[in-house]
Amino acid sequence: MHYPRPLQQLMEELGKLPGIGPKTAQRLALYLVGRPAGEVQALARALIEASEKTILCSRCFNLTDVDPCALCTDPRRNDRLLCVVEQPRDVFALERTREFHGRYHVLHGAISPIEGIGPDDLRIKELLRRLSEQPVEEVILATNSTVEGEATAMYLVRLLKPAGIKVSRIAYGLPVGGDLEYVDEVTLSRALEGRRPL
Amino acid sequence: MHYPRPLQQLMEELGKLPGIGPKTAQRLALYLVGRPAGEVQALARALIEASEKTILCSRCFNLTDVDPCALCTDPRRNDRLLCVVEQPRDVFALERTREFHGRYHVLHGAISPIEGIGPDDLRIKELLRRLSEQPVEEVILATNSTVEGEATAMYLVRLLKPAGIKVSRIAYGLPVGGDLEYVDEVTLSRALEGRRPL
Repeated sequence: MHYPRPLQQLMEELGKLPGIGPKTAQRLALYLVGRPAGEVQALARALIEASEKTILCSRCFNLTDVDPCALCTDPRRNDRLLCVVEQPRDVFALERTREFHGRYHVLHGAISPIEGIGPDDLRIKELLRRLSEQPVEEVILATNSTVEGEATAMYLVRLLKPAGIKVSRIAYGLPVGGDLEYVDEVTLSRALEGRRPL
Repeated sequence: MHYPRPLQQLMEELGKLPGIGPKTAQRLALYLVGRPAGEVQALARALIEASEKTILCSRCFNLTDVDPCALCTDPRRNDRLLCVVEQPRDVFALERTREFHGRYHVLHGAISPIEGIGPDDLRIKELLRRLSEQPVEEVILATNSTVEGEATAMYLVRLLKPAGIKVSRIAYGLPVGGDLEYVDEVTLSRALEGRRPL
């Protein structure tokens, strides 16, 4: 005996989401059919709205509902600093620090030979076009500190340095609040290398 | 700086789901806006469909899309055995065992003075009506083995026994495949009590 077909269907759709296994999909579906119709409709509407109205900014390729996005058109931001990240979520993470006031460029991935992702699959051509059109003084590479993020940063360094653009990489080191003994050796040696005089 | 409004809205709606915290809601929303519109629409449609078409069976109060439900109308099932459970998910769990071929009755909760849930908030009146109309020989109490499930079972025993109805409780004991040393003392003493001659 199965769940009623519409409920089964909902479990299958929920189960397609990343990190949602069959048990969680079942729990969520059972919860949802027990809620007032208005609540479920609100979620369905939010899904459609977000899917339809969220686009990529044609300048920085961040997620936005207006093009160009608010970050690209904000006149208070510094055009001379350009921070390159892998994903839209990285822009929002950096914005939460309130420390960076330049512009962004979202690559939408990182170079990964294993997954068959090469430079042409990322927004690198668009980055080069921006750099040729805008007066950028420094490109900050804020790709992840993974093998793929590193490979992407190194690729961009080799591409941009010969063009005379100042390129920097965000720092490696101890996470704030992190215990020295629990930090892996690679991070710790990078933290030593990157030490600063006080 | 916030996420674009429609995306923010989606994160908020997803964050209302049980067990979905802000981080997961963010991850899911960012994943969804990156998927083809058709995929997101399929999920939205499944939500609406499940919400609209899933109703409670007027006989057993299980979730169904036809009333009375398939379990209530299946002529191969035994009308004389009635299994009482707390939630629809319990019916599906029991059905997966393929061991029970009687009918079900879903209470939609358990007695819990702390949460202010009394007998009148459960489908107990409806259970009594069924028992007065149908020739049930045995009521199997399959409420959870929690304080609330126990209280509900005891309440029903006191209610049904004087009416001359045979009432039983599902067995307590070791979970199959469970190691004796990891089972709590209460379960273990119940397992001893419930021992069977071989």
